[in-house]
Amino acid sequence: MQLFYTTHIADNKALLTDDEARHVKVLRKSVNDHLHLIDGTGYLYEAVITEIVETKKAHEVHLNIVSKNLQARSRDFHFHLFIAPTKQNERIEWMLEKAIETGLDSITFIQTEHSEKNRVNMGRLEKICISAMKQSGEFYKPLINDLMNFKDVLHSNKDAVQLLAHCNSQFEKQSLQDYSVAIKNANINIFIGPEGDFSETEIKQAYEMGFKGLSLGSTRLRTETAGLYATMALSAVLGK
Amino acid sequence: MQLFYTTHIADNKALLTDDEARHVKVLRKSVNDHLHLIDGTGYLYEAVITEIVETKKAHEVHLNIVSKNLQARSRDFHFHLFIAPTKQNERIEWMLEKAIETGLDSITFIQTEHSEKNRVNMGRLEKICISAMKQSGEFYKPLINDLMNFKDVLHSNKDAVQLLAHCNSQFEKQSLQDYSVAIKNANINIFIGPEGDFSETEIKQAYEMGFKGLSLGSTRLRTETAGLYATMALSAVLGK
Repeated sequence: MQLFYTTHIADNKALLTDDEARHVKVLRKSVNDHLHLIDGTGYLYEAVITEIVETKKAHEVHLNIVSKNLQARSRDFHFHLFIAPTKQNERIEWMLEKAIETGLDSITFIQTEHSEKNRVNMGRLEKICISAMKQSGEFYKPLINDLMNFKDVLHSNKDAVQLLAHCNSQFEKQSLQDYSVAIKNANINIFIGPEGDFSETEIKQAYEMGFKGLSLGSTRLRTETAGLYATMALSAVLGK
Repeated sequence: MQLFYTTHIADNKALLTDDEARHVKVLRKSVNDHLHLIDGTGYLYEAVITEIVETKKAHEVHLNIVSKNLQARSRDFHFHLFIAPTKQNERIEWMLEKAIETGLDSITFIQTEHSEKNRVNMGRLEKICISAMKQSGEFYKPLINDLMNFKDVLHSNKDAVQLLAHCNSQFEKQSLQDYSVAIKNANINIFIGPEGDFSETEIKQAYEMGFKGLSLGSTRLRTETAGLYATMALSAVLGK
């Protein structure tokens, strides 16, 4: 089923703009044709095209909503990934695309002691997010949060199970499979550090705040591979 | 630990060529410096540089082996992925990189009824394979097999658990978690189809040959995401 994304839905009317409106044109749809819309809040809308506006400045498709149905969430846990951005943007970008396809509710980028990059392109990540949502038939749009300092994030999220993935063998760690009972139906926050890992001070601080150590297997993983591994492993271990 | 890959090891002598030899130069290594070598068969070698040859035509580093130690495998199961190539080469390429980082023993590309692409760039995939091995500290080089017809592959591999991942709801399927007992310590073959999925005929034939149906969750996955999901989910469910 082809899905179109818009946040412009009110009073049984909907509006598609920009890429979404151009896509309607590419598919040669016209007035009176029916489309399926999503707005990222869990609803699936059926709508009928009432007007297509195409000028040099704007592409717009106006629709009337025919039906609106709330879709069930596909997971009974909430997964929030905290991850240091990689030096190359494209590595975080594909990680986000794949993580959304397999099951991610929120992502927050973190600035850590060993971070080499402290900027993310939010506009581009939003676009990737919407495209991945449509591709995978997800009705709930993941929340993407801009960069925060790791120390600030440490003190929030008290109601979640907080798992810190790191490679320091001095600190106790367990696998997601080991945590599977503790994290069932929970709010799960998983933290992935930069290429240089979390510092010893950061790990200590996190453990003092009640974080648990998470092992992602015996091989060395790149940051973006670790982020995706956490997402996919969680889905495999808890089902969805 | 920085690893160098070569298949030229004999009589306690080793030779690095091309990219590997150039990398030695980039790192400003010279005669009498020690390097760590791998050959993809599970051994870790320590070697000392005896000669560096650099001409317009060739880059070569000659070494004497100082020690040789067989490393333990990181998994107690053998995972062979069979997958249809994607239209865009880069999608299969990053999938391979990430799959090797997380745990893959063999990969075979398959030609199916709905395949849109029936060619893979073996040379490029070999390079990605070696780079991912070195990056993740793997000592066993995964085997990469060129395209085979799905029908031909169906009749081999009698000693493995054969799991066919597909999206056809008419056929019974279970998750990797459900199969976790049956696949422990086993040779596991997982089959991933093209964007258009395996045909009904192909699924029927496979089930008749004793294949089991595999569900990779409730969301729609692209081919390369499914391949990586299978790899990561297997590692998460069985440990490694």
